[in-house]
Amino acid sequence: MFSERLEEVQGLVADHLTRIMRPLGDGRIADAMRYASSGGKRMRAFLVMEGARLHGIGDEQGIWSAAAVECLHAYSLVHDDLPCMDDDDMRRGLPTVHVQWDEATAVLAGDALQTLCFELLARDEASTDAGVRAGLVLSMARAAGAQGMVLGQALDIAAESAREPLTLDEIERLQAGKTGALITWAACAGAQLAGADEAPMRAYGDALGLAFQIADDILDVEGDAEAMGKAAGKDAAAGKATFVSLLGLDAAKRRAEALVDEATEALSSYGAEADCLREAARFVIARES
Amino acid sequence: MFSERLEEVQGLVADHLTRIMRPLGDGRIADAMRYASSGGKRMRAFLVMEGARLHGIGDEQGIWSAAAVECLHAYSLVHDDLPCMDDDDMRRGLPTVHVQWDEATAVLAGDALQTLCFELLARDEASTDAGVRAGLVLSMARAAGAQGMVLGQALDIAAESAREPLTLDEIERLQAGKTGALITWAACAGAQLAGADEAPMRAYGDALGLAFQIADDILDVEGDAEAMGKAAGKDAAAGKATFVSLLGLDAAKRRAEALVDEATEALSSYGAEADCLREAARFVIARES
Repeated sequence: MFSERLEEVQGLVADHLTRIMRPLGDGRIADAMRYASSGGKRMRAFLVMEGARLHGIGDEQGIWSAAAVECLHAYSLVHDDLPCMDDDDMRRGLPTVHVQWDEATAVLAGDALQTLCFELLARDEASTDAGVRAGLVLSMARAAGAQGMVLGQALDIAAESAREPLTLDEIERLQAGKTGALITWAACAGAQLAGADEAPMRAYGDALGLAFQIADDILDVEGDAEAMGKAAGKDAAAGKATFVSLLGLDAAKRRAEALVDEATEALSSYGAEADCLREAARFVIARES
Repeated sequence: MFSERLEEVQGLVADHLTRIMRPLGDGRIADAMRYASSGGKRMRAFLVMEGARLHGIGDEQGIWSAAAVECLHAYSLVHDDLPCMDDDDMRRGLPTVHVQWDEATAVLAGDALQTLCFELLARDEASTDAGVRAGLVLSMARAAGAQGMVLGQALDIAAESAREPLTLDEIERLQAGKTGALITWAACAGAQLAGADEAPMRAYGDALGLAFQIADDILDVEGDAEAMGKAAGKDAAAGKATFVSLLGLDAAKRRAEALVDEATEALSSYGAEADCLREAARFVIARES
């Protein structure tokens, strides 16, 4: 059920991004924006679309917020991959934007993908209720900005030159910003679109985001570089503190499992309707890439 | 009248940005965001505040959109100054962000300043009317994105490695994106806040933006490096096509003057109430930095 729905969302997002970016023509920046926002698992879009469906919002409306969060995510990857940041040459099995084009193109394409995210959320099609549109923009800005995702990325970069490895609390704070804030936004967007209570979806998203990151650290140790489309063991080789280095492999796995239980239990009020989101949570720690 | 109001706006913007960024604390990114968004002439904020006043919107409301456009402008300068872009070491008489800190900090602080712009426009304080807030976000996204400011910057960078210097039409298109779109947004914001017809302010902003850029090219040739806080003659030395190189100095001055006339005439329906904006247009081509 989850994998079929994920595949459906992947197709819908790809089509929507193609349509949305058509007016941009075929210049260098537009091409780089398309390249950077294609592929990927689309977990954030899936969370938006399933959260929306759960609250009675149809795909044709949810797709606007789903595409928006994928644009924001794509921007963050393009900038994170820059030589002055994580300096990654490969992403999703392809050369990163600054390798395929150049650094200036990567900076600008990332910038414009962030802008496009806010455009999509503010457009009439995202919601007929202007209060909802403004609310989506506001919550996204808070998740993405200097107290959310950018803060997490800054803490991550600071950690690389720190004398002491990070503590568990510090890593949790870093990840809550770097990946957690956007995953929680995606989980809550459907409730926000419907004007419903966001608390259960927020609890689900918070637990899922942390589980996702612990699973990433486990994959970095155990994973197959080819399946991931990027180098495995990179964090360990760089002497970076990770959930695995701090907790040990077995305890990290147990922690991820407990978080997945927490995430699925947060959905109890939705009954069987939320089974696809429960399955998604279990997938997060079972995936191989 | 203009200079007093500009000074007042400078003070209001500085106070507002200080208050808005207080919750960010004193980390590296927050410090760089404050540094990058301080100083400057605040012409865009002035346009928002005077356009707002002209449409019956008070300073305490207009300041949110004024601060937003200054954050967007600051982000664009931080990224434009990066080594992979224009590679500038000085801005407003101070080291640029990547010189004062490092490139990663400049990328992230710029990113977060863009995000902050959209947060400010989406906040309840920007307008009690959610439709207006969503509209401000949407028009800003269009002005700032891949068909506006980012496009202009991309055309500018492409021009540096082009075999032929740009034609006048190409330079006008470049500037309409790079500086014009944001100036026009700022000019229209007050009418947008009031739900009024934006056409006169759009005509004013379009003419003003182009006059501003021609004046910049004239200053680059005639200006005093110390007063500008950056190197003079840089564009000419780089062999870049400018309005001055294409039109000649005298014709460029006449063109700027004609545009200022066009801008002031666009405001005829507002009568004497718009005198401060008319004076601003004349200042743009008379300034020395």
